Amino acid sequence: MYRSHTCGSLRLTDAGQRVLLSGWVQVSRDLGGLTFVDLRDRYGITQLVFNMDTRPELCARARKLGREYVIRVEGVVRERTSKNPNRPTGDIEIDVDLLDVLNASKVPPFTIEADTDGGDDLRMKYRYLDLRREPVKRNLLFRGKLTLETRHYLDGQGFVEIETPFLIKSTPEGARDFVVPSRLNPGEFYALPQSPQTFKQILMVAGMDRYFQIVKCFRDEDLRADRQPEFTQIDCEMAFVSREDILRTFEGLTRHLFLKLLGIGLPEFPRMSYDEAMQRYGSDKPDLRFEMTIGDIGHLARGQGFPVFDQAGLVAGICAKGIADRYSNKDLNELTDWVRRPQIGAGGLVYVRFNEDGTIKSSVGKYFTDEQLRQWGTVFEAGPGDLLLVLSGEEEKTRKQLGELRLEMGRRLGLIQPGIFRPLWVLDFPLLEWDEESGRFFAMHHPFTSPKPEDVGLMDSTDREVLRRLRADAYDLVINGTEIGGGSIRIHDRALQSRNFSLLGFSTEEAEAQFGFLLGAFEYGAPPHGGIAFGLDRLCAVMNGQNNIRDFIAFPKNNTGRDMMIDAPSPIADAQWEELGLAPLPPRN
Amino acid sequence: MYRSHTCGSLRLTDAGQRVLLSGWVQVSRDLGGLTFVDLRDRYGITQLVFNMDTRPELCARARKLGREYVIRVEGVVRERTSKNPNRPTGDIEIDVDLLDVLNASKVPPFTIEADTDGGDDLRMKYRYLDLRREPVKRNLLFRGKLTLETRHYLDGQGFVEIETPFLIKSTPEGARDFVVPSRLNPGEFYALPQSPQTFKQILMVAGMDRYFQIVKCFRDEDLRADRQPEFTQIDCEMAFVSREDILRTFEGLTRHLFLKLLGIGLPEFPRMSYDEAMQRYGSDKPDLRFEMTIGDIGHLARGQGFPVFDQAGLVAGICAKGIADRYSNKDLNELTDWVRRPQIGAGGLVYVRFNEDGTIKSSVGKYFTDEQLRQWGTVFEAGPGDLLLVLSGEEEKTRKQLGELRLEMGRRLGLIQPGIFRPLWVLDFPLLEWDEESGRFFAMHHPFTSPKPEDVGLMDSTDREVLRRLRADAYDLVINGTEIGGGSIRIHDRALQSRNFSLLGFSTEEAEAQFGFLLGAFEYGAPPHGGIAFGLDRLCAVMNGQNNIRDFIAFPKNNTGRDMMIDAPSPIADAQWEELGLAPLPPRN
Repeated sequence: MYRSHTCGSLRLTDAGQRVLLSGWVQVSRDLGGLTFVDLRDRYGITQLVFNMDTRPELCARARKLGREYVIRVEGVVRERTSKNPNRPTGDIEIDVDLLDVLNASKVPPFTIEADTDGGDDLRMKYRYLDLRREPVKRNLLFRGKLTLETRHYLDGQGFVEIETPFLIKSTPEGARDFVVPSRLNPGEFYALPQSPQTFKQILMVAGMDRYFQIVKCFRDEDLRADRQPEFTQIDCEMAFVSREDILRTFEGLTRHLFLKLLGIGLPEFPRMSYDEAMQRYGSDKPDLRFEMTIGDIGHLARGQGFPVFDQAGLVAGICAKGIADRYSNKDLNELTDWVRRPQIGAGGLVYVRFNEDGTIKSSVGKYFTDEQLRQWGTVFEAGPGDLLLVLSGEEEKTRKQLGELRLEMGRRLGLIQPGIFRPLWVLDFPLLEWDEESGRFFAMHHPFTSPKPEDVGLMDSTDREVLRRLRADAYDLVINGTEIGGGSIRIHDRALQSRNFSLLGFSTEEAEAQFGFLLGAFEYGAPPHGGIAFGLDRLCAVMNGQNNIRDFIAFPKNNTGRDMMIDAPSPIADAQWEELGLAPLPPRN
Repeated sequence: MYRSHTCGSLRLTDAGQRVLLSGWVQVSRDLGGLTFVDLRDRYGITQLVFNMDTRPELCARARKLGREYVIRVEGVVRERTSKNPNRPTGDIEIDVDLLDVLNASKVPPFTIEADTDGGDDLRMKYRYLDLRREPVKRNLLFRGKLTLETRHYLDGQGFVEIETPFLIKSTPEGARDFVVPSRLNPGEFYALPQSPQTFKQILMVAGMDRYFQIVKCFRDEDLRADRQPEFTQIDCEMAFVSREDILRTFEGLTRHLFLKLLGIGLPEFPRMSYDEAMQRYGSDKPDLRFEMTIGDIGHLARGQGFPVFDQAGLVAGICAKGIADRYSNKDLNELTDWVRRPQIGAGGLVYVRFNEDGTIKSSVGKYFTDEQLRQWGTVFEAGPGDLLLVLSGEEEKTRKQLGELRLEMGRRLGLIQPGIFRPLWVLDFPLLEWDEESGRFFAMHHPFTSPKPEDVGLMDSTDREVLRRLRADAYDLVINGTEIGGGSIRIHDRALQSRNFSLLGFSTEEAEAQFGFLLGAFEYGAPPHGGIAFGLDRLCAVMNGQNNIRDFIAFPKNNTGRDMMIDAPSPIADAQWEELGLAPLPPRN
C-alpha cells in the first residue's frame, strides 16, 4: 500500500492519526536538529518532519533526499508550531518514522515552481516536469472539469455524443488536410478531419436530432503562436431548429460553464450584426470590455481642401476620453509610428486635442477651423480633455486599422480590466468572400452555410456586388475580442446546396466527387438543421484570461509542428515506405 | 417554430391540446375517409389522422406523402378509438389541420424497419438511412449513455480526462502504424497512436495521479469482421497503486455500467490465473457461462499400446453431460470433421459413450478395457448418459483445440443462455512470447509491462525456458469469453525497462531512438503506476449480446478499410503529392 491519504487531505482534526503518504520531494530544509521536507502530489503539499535526536539514522537518510525524489513515508499527524495559513494542510505536519525511496530523480533542468526558469523549448522537451508545475497542472484540471460540465449540460438538453470517423476523405476546400496513405488501397489516401461538419449533418439526416462531440480536428497550416496542427472542438448540431433555438441553447451552455467553473453569472448576451461590428469596432470580434467606438467624420472632413481626406473612401476616428493634456506630442509621434507599422499599414495619424482650457490643437489645424474640428468632436460627444485620433483611406482597410488602434489604445490606457467577461453574438455574416487573387468567391463560414431566408433570392444574381451583399444565417460567439465559437443554419435542400457550390466555383462533377454523399443524403428526407462549434483550447484560455492555448494542451506542438518531447515527426523505416507504395519526390532538374 | 413536442412525448393526459410536430413519414395508410400517417423522430412515433370529410384538400395532400418525407403538422391531440398498447403514444393521435412538407424523399433503397431488407454494402453506403432504423439508433444511444456513465464514475473516483496527441511517432513494435506525412518536415512522418500508452505513463510521471480518456486508436491491420482500422478505448492509468487497487477500481466501473445501463447487479468477479484458464478452458478468455471443463487423462491413457496417445504431449477431453444416447454416430462423425477443419486442426476425435444402460461404447474400445475407460470417466465425474470427447497431440495446440471444441459443444447443446453475464479477471500472463519465425521474444502485453515482483530476478537469466516462465503483473477483464479490457502494472525503473527492451531484442540505440523520452522521464522521479484499457466498441457489443462491433459505430469501415458512404480512401490532387514531397513508388523491374 502506498498511501492512506493524499498530500492535500490532512487537517488539524487528523492530529494524532497514523498515516501513510507518497509523493514528490518539493523541497527539504535541514535545520540541524530537524529536517523538514515538503511532500507534493496532485492534491497538495504536506510538511514532513525528521528528528535527528529521536531518529538519527532516518533523519540522515532524509537529508540525502533530492528535489523530485519519489518517496513513501509513515508517521503521525501533529499540530504545527509555526502554521502556514496559505496552505490547506498548513496547520499540521507529519512526524515521520518510516521512509522508503520509491524512485530517485536527477536534478531537474528547470525549477518546478509556479514561476519557472525554464525556457519554452526546455519546458516542452521535459513536458512531464513542466506539467508538475502548479499553474500548468491547474490548467489541465480546469480543462478536464470544463469538458465534464459541457457533457453534463448537453446531456441534460437531450444531446447525444456520437463519434465520427478520423480517417475520412480529403477535400481541397478550406485549409490544408493532413493525409494518411492507405496501405490496403495503394495510391489512395485518407484525410484527417478539419471538422466533423459533413458527418454531423449526415447524423441530422439520420434523425439523431441532437448531436455533440468533443473531438480533435486537424489543420496542416503554417503555424502561428496561437495555432496548433491538432486542436479540439466542442462540436454540436441540432435538427428542426431556427437560429434562435441554437443561440439560446449555447448561450445557456456558456453561462453554465462560467457559473460552474468561475462562479460568474453572465447576463444575457448582446447581439450585433456583422455590419455594425465592423462599423463601430472595425472588427467582426469586437472587444466590448471598453467603448471608444469608431465614428465616421467623412461628411465633415471631406471637401475642405485637405487632399488626403478628399481622396479617402473613409475618414473616421476614435475618441480617447480625458487624456488630451496627458498624451504628449512624443506619445503621438510614437503612436503614429505604431499605426504605420506594416502589421497595421496606415499612411498616417491625424489627431485633434480638445484641451482642458477649451483650446484646440490638431495636426491638421491649418486645413480646418476650430469650429470645424469642434463639429468632428460632436460625433464622439468629445469634451474638454478628450483626444481624437483619425485615420483615413480605403474603407475596409481603414476600418480594420481603426479597430487595431482602438484595441491598442484600450491596452495603453489600461481600459481592459482583468476578470471581466463581455460575451456577444455577432450575426448575419456575409455568405461569400471575394478573393481577388484567385478571382472567385470563397465561403466565409463554409460551403454548407445557408443564406438568410430573405436573401435566398439574391443567389440567382450574377452581379458580384449583389452576391457580396448576400447574408448568411451564420453566427459567432465572441468573448473579450476572441472568437470562441461559430456556426450556422445549414442548407438542407439539394438544389440550393448545388447552387451554392456553383457560386463557389465547383463544377457539378467536383461537387459530386467531393460531397456527392451529402447531396445524395439531401434527397432522402433531410430535416432543417443547424449547429455550432466551440474552440475548446481557446475557450479555456479566454476563461482564464490567457492568450496562449498551448498552456491548456497537455502535449502541444511547437511552431514547426514538432513534438519536442517525443521528437515527432520522424523518419520511418524503408519497409514502411515500401508497404505504403511511396517514395520521396525525386528532385527537379 | 418546428415543434412543441417530440413524436415520443404525447400521452392521453395531453388530449385536447393543440400541438406542433415535425418528423419523418414512417408509413401512411389510406382508409378512404381517413388517412393515417405514422410520424417518426428520434423519440418515438405518433399517429396522425387526416379527415377526408372535414378537410378534403388537406387529406388529399396527406395521401401524396411518401415514406421518409419530412413534414411539420399542427393539430389537436385526441384519444384513439383503437389503441396501440405496444407504443408509449399508442393511446392518442393527432387530428391534423395544418401540413407543411419540409423536404421530400426518394424511395429508400431498403426498408427503414427493425428487420431491413438491405444488404451490408447497401446499408453502409446509405448509412444515414440505416441509422434511422430502431436497432441501430438504439445502439448509438446506448454507446452515448455508456460513455457518459463511464465519465461520471471515473470523475467520482478522482480521474481527470486528459487529451493526448494524435500526431505522434511511429514505432515498429506491435501492430502496423498509420502514418501522416509532414509537409513542414519533408520526408518525415507522424504516426497515429495505436494507444496513448506512453503518454499516459508520462502523465503519471507528471504527477496527474489518475488519468483517463475515451479516445480513438488506430491500427493498420488486415481487417477481420470484428476489427476496425479506428476503434475507441476507455484508457486509464493510476499512480501509487498495486494491482489490487486497479482491479477493484475497474471492477467497480464495470459493475456501475451494468447496473446503470442494463439494470443488472453483477456479483464480485472471480479471478483465474492464465495457467489455470489454459488448463481448464483451453483459452485465456474463458467463457464461464457453462462448465464442461477440460480434464487431463494422459496418466491413464498412455502406455496402453495405443500409439496416438503414447506419442501425444497431451491427452485430454471434455465431458458432455446426459447426451450419450441422444448424440448419434452421425453426430460424432460430423463433429470429427469439425475438429479436423484447418481452423481447428485436430488429427481426430476419440469418444467414450457411457450409455444410460451402463454399457460403454468408445472409438478406442479395442485398445482399452471398459474398466480403463471408466477410470477416464472418474476424471470428469462422468456417469451413465455422459459423453466423453478426447483429443490428443502437442500440448499447447491440443489445449486450444479442446477450448474450441468446448465452445462448439456449448453452442450445439444450447448451454449458453442469452442475457447471462459471467465476467472474470485473468491474471499472471506470461511476460514474453517466443516467436519461432523471427527467433526472438515479443511482449505478450506490451514492452512497458512489469514482471511480477517475485519474478524480477528471473529476468537476468539467459535460459529461454526460464524467461518463458516469467510472469507479468498483467490482467485481462473477460466477459462471456470476450476480452473487454486489459492492462498491467508498468515498469517505472529505467534499468528494469532497459533490461526488458534488451530481452525484446532492442539494441540500446533502438530503445533510445524510439522510447528515449520515456526512459528519460524515468530518471526524474517516476512513481509506481499501472493502468488498463477497455475496448469500448466491444464492451457495447458484449453488453448487448451481439458479436459485430460495427453495429455500435456510427460510420464503420468495411473489410478493406473503406468508408462506403463517403468513398474514402481516395486519390489526392497532384499538388498535394507535390507539397508533401511524395511520389508513388516506381514499379520494380
